[in-house]
Amino acid sequence: MKLYGDWRSSATWRVRIALAWKNLDVDVTPVDILAGQQRSGAFLEKNPMAHVPVLEIDGGVHLAESLAILEWLEETHPSPPLLPSDPILRAKARQQALLIASGIQPLQNTKVQIHVRDVLHADERAWVRHFVEPGLVALEALVRETRGKFAVGDAPSFADVCIVPQLHHARRFDVDLARCPSLVAIEAECAALPAFQRAHADRQPDAPRST
Amino acid sequence: MKLYGDWRSSATWRVRIALAWKNLDVDVTPVDILAGQQRSGAFLEKNPMAHVPVLEIDGGVHLAESLAILEWLEETHPSPPLLPSDPILRAKARQQALLIASGIQPLQNTKVQIHVRDVLHADERAWVRHFVEPGLVALEALVRETRGKFAVGDAPSFADVCIVPQLHHARRFDVDLARCPSLVAIEAECAALPAFQRAHADRQPDAPRST
Repeated sequence: MKLYGDWRSSATWRVRIALAWKNLDVDVTPVDILAGQQRSGAFLEKNPMAHVPVLEIDGGVHLAESLAILEWLEETHPSPPLLPSDPILRAKARQQALLIASGIQPLQNTKVQIHVRDVLHADERAWVRHFVEPGLVALEALVRETRGKFAVGDAPSFADVCIVPQLHHARRFDVDLARCPSLVAIEAECAALPAFQRAHADRQPDAPRST
Repeated sequence: MKLYGDWRSSATWRVRIALAWKNLDVDVTPVDILAGQQRSGAFLEKNPMAHVPVLEIDGGVHLAESLAILEWLEETHPSPPLLPSDPILRAKARQQALLIASGIQPLQNTKVQIHVRDVLHADERAWVRHFVEPGLVALEALVRETRGKFAVGDAPSFADVCIVPQLHHARRFDVDLARCPSLVAIEAECAALPAFQRAHADRQPDAPRST
């Protein structure tokens, strides 16, 4: 398998966590989204939506949309799982993941920020905070009903896979996380796990080297 | 089961289609999102994110995020299905659904439109077109690789469930669909199915009566 993605992209990061959790080795091809490489002809053949990540699987099939990739990994490589076995808890884990993937992250997407800044001549960082902060406060309320060590019970799920990159980016935009203590505690639990460590943005080959 | 939603909301519409397809009867409680009822205390207890729809299931459990609800319905009421059986085709159906649910719809969300108009003093209809049109053109390219009568093969899936409300709203914003003939043809196939007919926005009890 081959993963096309950007070290900064939270959607790519989610897939990296799932691959590492399931002990799957993949070749990584960096796609620099700030340089616009996701709009190259070669990439658009893999995903016409011009979004990272793309996972290339058997026979040159290309899958995109991080949660669709996570579901595919869960169905084809079920162990160790990233969803609980109880149907209601599975729904709760997916609800929390989608709250981020559909309710928060699309509004801080790089192309949206650039449009807000360059076309609407508005403060893109204020825009991001306006949508991310209440989204995370809502997620905190949901997580309080389901959490153990992780967002839904005592094992990592799709929810945690989405929470970790989202909190990282929230801090970059100075989002106040004071009202999200459960999310911050879950992030700390995740940070102790080798799979989450290996998937961290700063540890990717295309990340800038700290000197 | 009880569905809290708004006739206009495309996320609510998706869940209505899935319920109708699976022959599940639910009580519907309208939540008027233009009047802000999704921010009432009573609704926030059901979904702190203040988004419709919410499906109330056994024992007063509340599920939100339309695709999480669709996955729960698929797991607990698998027949008739809304996903193919082949893992790669399941992934493709989910990818197309998520392209809409994470890549397009969040940017035309009512609260985003209001923010663009009232806070950034920009044209919210131009904003919607700017993001919806290229999103649908990208989806058209994906669908051409997988379509039969419907988006993925010859049976409706999560992809079609998302395409139908999205095209309806695209027209409201004068999005040009000339480059999306496959999507328009799929919409017409769906419109012939009773489940899609019953779920149509204009046929809901909270929709304005045409006289």
